[in-house]
Amino acid sequence: MIYFDNAATTQPYAEVLHTYQEVATKIFGNPSSLHNLGSKSTRILEASRKQIAELLGKTADEIFFTSGGTESDNWAIKGVAFEKARYGKHIIVSDIEHPAVKESAKWLSTQGFEVSFAPVDEKGFVDLEKLAELLRSDTTLVSVMAVNNEIGSIQPIQKISELLADKPTISFHVDAVQAIGKIPVSDFLTERVDLASFSGHKFHAVRGVGFLYKKAGKKLAPLLTGGGQEKDLRSTTENVAGIASMAKALRLTLDKEEVANIKIAKMRQIIREELLKHGDITVFSGNENFAPNILAFGIKGVRGEVVVHAFEEHEIYISTTSACSSKSGKAAGTLISMGVPTPSAQTAVRISLDDDNDMSQVEQFLTVFRQIYEKTKKVR
Amino acid sequence: MIYFDNAATTQPYAEVLHTYQEVATKIFGNPSSLHNLGSKSTRILEASRKQIAELLGKTADEIFFTSGGTESDNWAIKGVAFEKARYGKHIIVSDIEHPAVKESAKWLSTQGFEVSFAPVDEKGFVDLEKLAELLRSDTTLVSVMAVNNEIGSIQPIQKISELLADKPTISFHVDAVQAIGKIPVSDFLTERVDLASFSGHKFHAVRGVGFLYKKAGKKLAPLLTGGGQEKDLRSTTENVAGIASMAKALRLTLDKEEVANIKIAKMRQIIREELLKHGDITVFSGNENFAPNILAFGIKGVRGEVVVHAFEEHEIYISTTSACSSKSGKAAGTLISMGVPTPSAQTAVRISLDDDNDMSQVEQFLTVFRQIYEKTKKVR
Ligand SMILES: Cc1ncc(COP(=O)(O)O)c(C=O)c1O
Ligand SMILES: Cc1ncc(COP(=O)(O)O)c(C=O)c1O
Repeated sequence: MIYFDNAATTQPYAEVLHTYQEVATKIFGNPSSLHNLGSKSTRILEASRKQIAELLGKTADEIFFTSGGTESDNWAIKGVAFEKARYGKHIIVSDIEHPAVKESAKWLSTQGFEVSFAPVDEKGFVDLEKLAELLRSDTTLVSVMAVNNEIGSIQPIQKISELLADKPTISFHVDAVQAIGKIPVSDFLTERVDLASFSGHKFHAVRGVGFLYKKAGKKLAPLLTGGGQEKDLRSTTENVAGIASMAKALRLTLDKEEVANIKIAKMRQIIREELLKHGDITVFSGNENFAPNILAFGIKGVRGEVVVHAFEEHEIYISTTSACSSKSGKAAGTLISMGVPTPSAQTAVRISLDDDNDMSQVEQFLTVFRQIYEKTKKVR
Repeated sequence: MIYFDNAATTQPYAEVLHTYQEVATKIFGNPSSLHNLGSKSTRILEASRKQIAELLGKTADEIFFTSGGTESDNWAIKGVAFEKARYGKHIIVSDIEHPAVKESAKWLSTQGFEVSFAPVDEKGFVDLEKLAELLRSDTTLVSVMAVNNEIGSIQPIQKISELLADKPTISFHVDAVQAIGKIPVSDFLTERVDLASFSGHKFHAVRGVGFLYKKAGKKLAPLLTGGGQEKDLRSTTENVAGIASMAKALRLTLDKEEVANIKIAKMRQIIREELLKHGDITVFSGNENFAPNILAFGIKGVRGEVVVHAFEEHEIYISTTSACSSKSGKAAGTLISMGVPTPSAQTAVRISLDDDNDMSQVEQFLTVFRQIYEKTKKVR
C-alpha cells in the first residue's frame, strides 16, 4: 500500500497511540474533580498545554484545546465576529479558505454580518493589494490560511502581518492546519497573528482533537459554553488522553521537521518533474512558496475521480484535491478561485506526502502513473 | 481505590480501548476520501451509527456524532434558536440544567433571544404547571434534562411530552447525558422528543466523543460548519475510532443495564439508609423517581470540599455535586434552585456509583464515613 493522502489524514504514530492508551487507562479522572484522580488529569493536561506552547514558542495560556481544525476555525471566525459585533460587522476571509472557515463566514452573513472574500492570483496566492482594498473601519477579522490544503500554496502571512500592523482592532486568524510541520512555525505564527487553528490528525495524532492558539489578552466569545473549562472559553470534560497524545505527536513532528521536509520536498520534486514531461498533464501546484508535501495535477480530459480509482487499483491512495470536496463531486474550490476553468479543475487530483513515504514508493507511483497516462490516452 | 465519582466520568472499558486502538491503527483513512481506505472508514462509521440507533430504537439517520455532551447541548439549544428565529425568539430551559444547556441559553439572551428558566419544586423536579404557564406562541424550544447530574432526580419527560403533544412547532430537547444506562431509554426518548444529547465518557467510552439524537425530518442549524460531514450538519473529519468504540461502550452498557442497576440501586439504598441514621446529615437525593446511581448528601456545617478531601485520604473518590462546579467553589446550582439555603447547599457532596463498584466498597465507604462524621463533630 502506498498512502499519498496525508493531507486528508495521517496514520497516528505508534508512540502516540501508546500514550493515548496509557492515559485513557490510568489517568481517567475528570480534571474538574477535586480529588487527586482529578488533579493527576489536570497535571497531564497542563503539561501537554505547556509542551505544545513551548514547541510553538508561545505560552501555555495561549493554547486552547478543541475537537479539531473545524471547531478551531468555527470558534475563531464566529467568536471574533460575535465578540466584536458592537464595533463592526465586517469580516474578510480569503477566497481559498477551507470550508471550515468559508462556511462559517457564510453562516455569519445570514446573521447580519458582512463578509468579503479576498481573491487570489492565478498561482493561488492571496492578492495583497486587493486584500488591502477590502479593509474598512468596521472590519473586525481577517482570516487567511497558512498553507492551502488543495494545492499547497503558502500564503503571505508575513506580509499580511505587516499590512495589519497599524490596525490593532482587526483580529488576524490563520488556519495553520496544513502548515504545522510543513513550514517553519515562525513563517505563519508571527507576532501579529491573534488566532491560529491546528488539527491533531494532520500530524499523526488521533482524530477529534486539535487546538486554537489565542494570543494572550485577545478577547474571543466562546463557541461551546458550559462547565467553564479552558478558562471558560471552551467547555466540555477535557479529552486528556487525546490531548496528551497530541502533544507527543507535535513534538515528534517538529523534532524531525527539517530533515523530513528535505526528504519530502525531494520526492515531490521528482514526481513534479516527471509529470511535467507529459504533454497532457496540468500541474496546478507551483514550485516557489509551495508546501513540500502537496502536489495537485490533472490529466487533461480525465476526471479526478477516475484517476483516484485507477491508482487505487494498485493500492496507491490519493485524493481529488480535498477530502471534503471528494464526495460532493465538486471541483476544487481553490482552482476555481485561481481562475482555472471548471473542466480543467475537475481533472485535479492531489498527492500529499509524508516522512513515512520513501523513494521506492515514488518510483512505484510513477510507474503506475505512466500506465494510467497511457491507458487514458484513448479517452483524451 | 474506591471510585464513587462515575457521574463525573467513567473509566473506559478495556474492550472499548481495544476497539479504539484497532480502529485508530488499522482503519485510519478519512471517510471523505474516495479510495477504499476512505470507504473502509465510512463502513465502520455507518455501522457504528446503525448500532447506536438500534440500541435506542431509532434509525441511523437520526444519530449525529459530536465531541461530547457539551457540544450536543450547545448545538441543540443554539441550533434550534437560530433555525427558528424567524418564527419566534423565546426558549425555555429548566432551572436545573447542566451549564452546557444553561450557559448556551444565557448566551442566546445576549443575542436577542428571550430565555425563561422553568423552576423546580423542593425535591428537584420540574414544576409542570409552571412550565405550562411559560409556554408562549413564540416559544421555539423547551429543554429539560432526563436525569439531573447533581442529585439524580428523574425529570417528568413523559408528562412534558404530553404537555407539548399539541404544540408541534416547539422543539423538545432532552439532555440524556446522565440518563443513558441508568433509566430505560423509553422513559426519556419518547416519540415527542426531537433532540437528545449523549456523552460517551459517561458510559465507559473514551473522552471527546458523543452524539445528538435528532428526530427524522426536524430542522436544526449547524453549530460546526465546514466540509459537510454528518449530512452537512456537523463538519469535521470524523473521529471513527472514538465513534466505533463508543458504539461498543453503549452496547456493553445497555446489555447489562437492568441487572447492573438493580445492584447499583441496592448499594445506593444501603448508603442512603445508613446516612439517614445520622442526625447531622442532610440527604438531598430522594428515593422515588431518582436515578439508581446518584446520591447527594451533606454533613451539616461542613463544606463539601472538606468532605471530599477527607474521603480522598482513604482513596475514596467522590465529588462536590458536579465536577464542573467543584473548582469554581460554587454551591450546587440544583440545590439552590430547589430552595436549599446556600450554607446547606455548600455542604453537598455527590457519590455516583457504577456496576464496577461492589458491596465491599460500600462497606469501606461507610466505615470511612463514620470516621469522618465523628471527626467533624468538633467543627459542627
Ligand atoms: C486547511 C484546513 N483547515 C481545516 C481543516 C479541518 O480539520 P478537521 O478535519 O480536523 O476538522 C482541514 C482538514 O480537513 C484543513 O485542511
Ligand atoms: C447532564 C450533563 N449534561 C452535559 C454534560 C457535559 O458533557 P461533556 O463533559 O461530555 O461535554 C454533563 C457532564 O459533564 C452532564 O452531566
